[in-house]
Amino acid sequence: MDGPAFQHIPPWVKSKLRPIAIEKIQKVYDFVETECIPAEPIMKAQIAEQGKRWTTQPLMHELREKAKKAGLFNLFLPNHFKESPGLTNLEYSCCAEIMGRVYWAQQTMNCHAPETGNIELLAKYCTSEQKEKWLQPLLDGTASSAYSMTEPDVASSDATQIGCRITREGDEYVINGRKLYGNCIWNAENKFYIMMGCSDPDNPNKWNRHSTVIVPTNTPGITQVRNLTIMGYDHAPEGHGEYIYKNVRIPVENIILGEGRAFEIAQGRLGPGRIHHCMRLIGQCERAYELALIRCIDTRKTPRGKRIGDFDSNIERIAQMRLEIDQARLVVLNAADTMDLHGNKAGRYAIAQSKILVPNMATRVIDECMQLYGGQGLTQHTPLPEMWTYARFVRIADGPDSAHRHQVGRDQLKLAEGLKERSREYQRKYKKLAEKMGAEYVVFHGVGYDDI
Amino acid sequence: MDGPAFQHIPPWVKSKLRPIAIEKIQKVYDFVETECIPAEPIMKAQIAEQGKRWTTQPLMHELREKAKKAGLFNLFLPNHFKESPGLTNLEYSCCAEIMGRVYWAQQTMNCHAPETGNIELLAKYCTSEQKEKWLQPLLDGTASSAYSMTEPDVASSDATQIGCRITREGDEYVINGRKLYGNCIWNAENKFYIMMGCSDPDNPNKWNRHSTVIVPTNTPGITQVRNLTIMGYDHAPEGHGEYIYKNVRIPVENIILGEGRAFEIAQGRLGPGRIHHCMRLIGQCERAYELALIRCIDTRKTPRGKRIGDFDSNIERIAQMRLEIDQARLVVLNAADTMDLHGNKAGRYAIAQSKILVPNMATRVIDECMQLYGGQGLTQHTPLPEMWTYARFVRIADGPDSAHRHQVGRDQLKLAEGLKERSREYQRKYKKLAEKMGAEYVVFHGVGYDDI
Amino acid sequence: MDGPAFQHIPPWVKSKLRPIAIEKIQKVYDFVETECIPAEPIMKAQIAEQGKRWTTQPLMHELREKAKKAGLFNLFLPNHFKESPGLTNLEYSCCAEIMGRVYWAQQTMNCHAPETGNIELLAKYCTSEQKEKWLQPLLDGTASSAYSMTEPDVASSDATQIGCRITREGDEYVINGRKLYGNCIWNAENKFYIMMGCSDPDNPNKWNRHSTVIVPTNTPGITQVRNLTIMGYDHAPEGHGEYIYKNVRIPVENIILGEGRAFEIAQGRLGPGRIHHCMRLIGQCERAYELALIRCIDTRKTPRGKRIGDFDSNIERIAQMRLEIDQARLVVLNAADTMDLHGNKAGRYAIAQSKILVPNMATRVIDECMQLYGGQGLTQHTPLPEMWTYARFVRIADGPDSAHRHQVGRDQLKLAEGLKERSREYQRKYKKLAEKMGAEYVVFHGVGYDDI
Amino acid sequence: MDGPAFQHIPPWVKSKLRPIAIEKIQKVYDFVETECIPAEPIMKAQIAEQGKRWTTQPLMHELREKAKKAGLFNLFLPNHFKESPGLTNLEYSCCAEIMGRVYWAQQTMNCHAPETGNIELLAKYCTSEQKEKWLQPLLDGTASSAYSMTEPDVASSDATQIGCRITREGDEYVINGRKLYGNCIWNAENKFYIMMGCSDPDNPNKWNRHSTVIVPTNTPGITQVRNLTIMGYDHAPEGHGEYIYKNVRIPVENIILGEGRAFEIAQGRLGPGRIHHCMRLIGQCERAYELALIRCIDTRKTPRGKRIGDFDSNIERIAQMRLEIDQARLVVLNAADTMDLHGNKAGRYAIAQSKILVPNMATRVIDECMQLYGGQGLTQHTPLPEMWTYARFVRIADGPDSAHRHQVGRDQLKLAEGLKERSREYQRKYKKLAEKMGAEYVVFHGVGYDDI
Repeated sequence: MDGPAFQHIPPWVKSKLRPIAIEKIQKVYDFVETECIPAEPIMKAQIAEQGKRWTTQPLMHELREKAKKAGLFNLFLPNHFKESPGLTNLEYSCCAEIMGRVYWAQQTMNCHAPETGNIELLAKYCTSEQKEKWLQPLLDGTASSAYSMTEPDVASSDATQIGCRITREGDEYVINGRKLYGNCIWNAENKFYIMMGCSDPDNPNKWNRHSTVIVPTNTPGITQVRNLTIMGYDHAPEGHGEYIYKNVRIPVENIILGEGRAFEIAQGRLGPGRIHHCMRLIGQCERAYELALIRCIDTRKTPRGKRIGDFDSNIERIAQMRLEIDQARLVVLNAADTMDLHGNKAGRYAIAQSKILVPNMATRVIDECMQLYGGQGLTQHTPLPEMWTYARFVRIADGPDSAHRHQVGRDQLKLAEGLKERSREYQRKYKKLAEKMGAEYVVFHGVGYDDI
Repeated sequence: MDGPAFQHIPPWVKSKLRPIAIEKIQKVYDFVETECIPAEPIMKAQIAEQGKRWTTQPLMHELREKAKKAGLFNLFLPNHFKESPGLTNLEYSCCAEIMGRVYWAQQTMNCHAPETGNIELLAKYCTSEQKEKWLQPLLDGTASSAYSMTEPDVASSDATQIGCRITREGDEYVINGRKLYGNCIWNAENKFYIMMGCSDPDNPNKWNRHSTVIVPTNTPGITQVRNLTIMGYDHAPEGHGEYIYKNVRIPVENIILGEGRAFEIAQGRLGPGRIHHCMRLIGQCERAYELALIRCIDTRKTPRGKRIGDFDSNIERIAQMRLEIDQARLVVLNAADTMDLHGNKAGRYAIAQSKILVPNMATRVIDECMQLYGGQGLTQHTPLPEMWTYARFVRIADGPDSAHRHQVGRDQLKLAEGLKERSREYQRKYKKLAEKMGAEYVVFHGVGYDDI
Repeated sequence: MDGPAFQHIPPWVKSKLRPIAIEKIQKVYDFVETECIPAEPIMKAQIAEQGKRWTTQPLMHELREKAKKAGLFNLFLPNHFKESPGLTNLEYSCCAEIMGRVYWAQQTMNCHAPETGNIELLAKYCTSEQKEKWLQPLLDGTASSAYSMTEPDVASSDATQIGCRITREGDEYVINGRKLYGNCIWNAENKFYIMMGCSDPDNPNKWNRHSTVIVPTNTPGITQVRNLTIMGYDHAPEGHGEYIYKNVRIPVENIILGEGRAFEIAQGRLGPGRIHHCMRLIGQCERAYELALIRCIDTRKTPRGKRIGDFDSNIERIAQMRLEIDQARLVVLNAADTMDLHGNKAGRYAIAQSKILVPNMATRVIDECMQLYGGQGLTQHTPLPEMWTYARFVRIADGPDSAHRHQVGRDQLKLAEGLKERSREYQRKYKKLAEKMGAEYVVFHGVGYDDI
Repeated sequence: MDGPAFQHIPPWVKSKLRPIAIEKIQKVYDFVETECIPAEPIMKAQIAEQGKRWTTQPLMHELREKAKKAGLFNLFLPNHFKESPGLTNLEYSCCAEIMGRVYWAQQTMNCHAPETGNIELLAKYCTSEQKEKWLQPLLDGTASSAYSMTEPDVASSDATQIGCRITREGDEYVINGRKLYGNCIWNAENKFYIMMGCSDPDNPNKWNRHSTVIVPTNTPGITQVRNLTIMGYDHAPEGHGEYIYKNVRIPVENIILGEGRAFEIAQGRLGPGRIHHCMRLIGQCERAYELALIRCIDTRKTPRGKRIGDFDSNIERIAQMRLEIDQARLVVLNAADTMDLHGNKAGRYAIAQSKILVPNMATRVIDECMQLYGGQGLTQHTPLPEMWTYARFVRIADGPDSAHRHQVGRDQLKLAEGLKERSREYQRKYKKLAEKMGAEYVVFHGVGYDDI
């Protein structure tokens, strides 16, 4: 574990990696270094040149084949699923970071969002018939899927307001509504949506009003109104669609787990996926950082005759980036480890911690790297603009960080009464001591004079 | 390990704690909660009331006795010293955080700076005669010592410039110069200085010019010119002296390790001590944070009729503090673990990471807590002003964070050439791919067209 | 106006200064440079040495005499008062900045808080009898006063909750309650409090429940429980008292303006005072900044053989400080000018802008200056610790900045409906254009499809 | 001046606006509100739909005609040029802010970069023959031009290294080299480049080695290799070209001012242009802010049943944005005013202050506005992504902010010696006072004991 594939893994994590993980991490690293990074501008050029913006690039197909043969498919699946190659969250996190070095490398190894979340969901909640029909092609990499939840008129941080209607009529569900995001239907490899809608709007329990169903993309009635750009990027050939569902009919067997159970499903989906996102961002940061280091020793661009890495302002910037990336990695790895040891639920706080801190760090760090590159840093001459945009997107995806902070803050405030009671005890003891010793007595522990 | 003593320890650390550590952590926690926190304002009042500002408070003596009896003395000593109670750096870090909840609790358990660093230094580099004379009283808690390095006219981040002269004359060293900091000589319990001075100014190797000697405080010729305040605090009864050494004579056997070996000694001293400082700061932050939570539910102070914890701006602030404290803890614990697994030298980067990130986080967090308390937060009605001041002091002690960032940045830049070579390889491969596929070819990997 | 007294005044302000102002600014500058700055450590030493901590220093009396003779008393009074020397807010602001260079210089010129606010209040709202009795001695500098509003159990940002009871009994008001802050009663020169209390708790209009009265400090029943320290400073000989009022009786003629009119008075008091605070903070920042520049060229402390001003990281820090101080000054001067042109009420937003932005900038900048000084920066060897503490105090005085941001934010949100209506108009026009030109039509102006 | 066109103009600026300026500001406002904002998505759609990406949109031509007829052309020209409509920098700044509300509105009024800088340059430095040929069409709006300075292998912050060769051969200059940026040659309306190259590489004075020449775009030998994207945007139909000059021949009369005078010209060009950029950014911020306010009261997206403007965390965010935008405006207006009163050179610092502070503020504020919009904020459903990208671009254009900070910092450090001398005087006076009064004497004013 001395090679570059392992250089950023902290000792305590290294000591937990089993041989299978060590092998996979090394292989992922070799694949990304050899097959993906050099091909990065090619992948971008190919989508532009083939004249078919919404068709997956031949190079992607080629690399997926290679990755599959190399045993690098589906590494993300947690080891409590039988389909899993057996990596713990912690072990997979080390792979995910490396995949993040190229934003589409995850896809070559079938470890990309939203596929990862969808595969997990289907593996966890589907009947064996459903699994065979929908899950297996995803695991095989022969089909692609999308997740459809966000709506134009609903705050994405409050899913209980989702309004897209799912109405049962005989053996079918009829769907009507409007959805945002979810990969582009124009890409023929996208075979179905896992969609969350409202099936029982009058249920007094707002957590039981919604259902999750599988909607094949070729079902009549679905229209993709447009593709949504992200900071100007169309993100072809996958994209982010805006959809109208008009009397879309699916068979009742396409429901997952049963009516009213959408939140149960959504809960189970989010945890590990957020960690994946965060580890990939850290891999991106490492790549951006490497580019920054290279820029620092560039002898072609030497303001005042010095390489920019000879300016100690930049030396400090380099150090600060290094420190912050490493700090963030510890947060995500701890979250992965917590999930491994105590389950996703126990890891909820640690996941939120990652979700809030990492994208903020990543946008800041990548922005600094762009700045070190001068004007060139904003152009197509580095991967930095795509990286920044991806990090910015993750910062808002699954709800803004303020919403996550609210949740964490509210949970924390539940501890306040207990702490206050303990403080009263401090103050009481202090009062006795002060009396005994004849010392001045003041309010000190956050409680008032009459409070104890 | 379900109790409050262990609530902030991440799972991966918990799994490494041995029974002895678990026992000590719990005992330290109980001692701090029961004996120290309630007595905090008393300790402050006692120094004011006794009319003897530079005499250690009776309460301190009393608590030190209690702690010693409870087996809580010298917990910090790394387990590779025979004097050590056997805790790893990681295990002791968990104790240090708890001690940090009250800024003087460390002293009750003989784990306070500069004693910890001095004890380690003496244990590591002294002869057995020296150890018996100087180390044993420190370990027993019957004497106190100070460390003396900083000088008024030298940048503290560059110790090679230290100028205080140590000249051998027969069987004695004669010392002349001016020193800053080092505990107050006015406190009678302070028995000796471990002093770094320049014994061989003409040595061509600037790292061999300095020596470290033991100077008893009652040696004629030492004058404490004044006490240095820190943000207005005199930090009695220990303080921070400003000293003149005028023909101070000590026997040659008071030299440690031999002439010219001061830097070898200094290197060995700093590592774990910095981690201790940082963990204690984290303990302070937890305490400040608890006070903030308590303030949030105060029903006496309710602007616009709401408790301040009902304002979601404050809810977000609470969350952000929680996230940042926990993030910082992971950094320090990882540094401690790295030292345990690979030694202090390997841990150098992780130590610097702690040293830079933690005091910055701590001053920010404690400041926010003061702000939540309104005007009261700046007064003697909470421990927050002392906490902030201590964190601010740690931020500059052992050199400003900018100096540490410089060091980290310079080390990082050594990697740049290797990364650039790898980038050239990316670009070469990409060029071949572009030619093969007829794709546009651009500069992409941080290298120029003529660079590959 | 080419000298150093005017060097930081922006051109547009210079062009508004009348000869009287130019003269006063120059004189204030000379006085501060010659009389105050060199005497700064003396003033601190004197309070320590005289053994009478709560007695005003002889040096202060001496300087006040000098300043008075030089025509530098009471410069702050706005020119709509007959007692005013005739400076506009803008002109006085230039004086206030210079006074701020030494934190007590304001007092030598009788322009110090809380005196300025009190004098303004008395001048504005008192009868001529009251003025003669209470105001004149303040203007003459023969007496000192304090302002008493904050209470221990009330959120200071919501004064409607003030609970200290003022009950009329015959020709007297009887006062009972507890107050925080307000200069120390132990200082014999402090002659009276201007106190805000609750005289009509059942009044349905919460803005009419409170009254403002004058309470001579020698009235029986007032006890100063203790002095409140600010970040450890006792701020002797003025201090910040904590008081109990127990059946304190004052004659009814001591009421200002009449019962129930406390808020009317409080409103009138705050505006210019906040600007004074802010301009003084800017003067402090300039002084801290000058010290930082001097430290930059110190040839005694040269890490790695360079002066710290030769490190371009520090060069950038210097620049950033320069930019931010100057930016903040523009904010305060604009607030002063707005008050001059349109009155205090119109200036409310600009005052809040100053109040929020300046203390935040000042604590940041002064902290950076301390850091440049290394360990010395925290000690008594520079005025920086006092400066930082003053800036930190101003950040919380008159309520925390979050409370002011809330007020500004709420006011701003009142504009949202009007803006939305304008946005609907944009969207309607756009829709027509899109139809006319056959262009794609999307939601664009923050309004929904059904919203126009 | 009560209408919305003037709402953000501070009183001191209002009082300086002459009737002609008031009229122009109002007209610009009406034009932007009525003609530009509603048409914003149309302009974007038109470039996509016409299938001619590098051809100026018909709508642009139409609006330029309208603006010209309305007397809104060339408002930016400083009033010391005979071509100027007579607005001061301060007055024009008020117009520029409003133009900034739509990023292309400047172009409709012929006030866009790089045209503004080019026009100024030609007006200032050209002969009357040159003016007639090159300047007049720009003023008439019948031709467009570009500025060409940046090179791929030169740090853009150090123009003395520019290497593109200009060699005289008979009556011609022959140009060879590589250039980055400068509007796209593929757009037929772009008629010529104002290019800076190296004509005398061996001149001992590095400031006299370069010349500025006019290169018609149709000159044989110029190839546009590609268009440079900015954060993924191609910025069609103007774009940012990457060019090869191969034996490009121009007549000698195309040189501006004479050989070796490029830096003289460059100096004169930059000042006001940077202010324009900054004021437009402030206009963008205002628009982003208005959108944020509108989002705050959206009743369709209500997490936890509240409008997002009902969360006081968002109320504080709104306030903070308001404060920072207004603060930045004061900086730019002060810079404009300084240039008006004392010339561009005197305004150099104030310009740098704007250049550094404003784009940083703008990226931060616009990013916050995007965040308030949730996922939608990153898509084409608001103008925010374009705004952010423009602000990010301005932050790096004309050199990174770190380079500007360096310049400011170096200038500031020149003041240090003078300040130190003054400090020595403080310390000397203090020493005398201390002796006289018998007070403790310490180092206090940043100078050492032996320093005075």
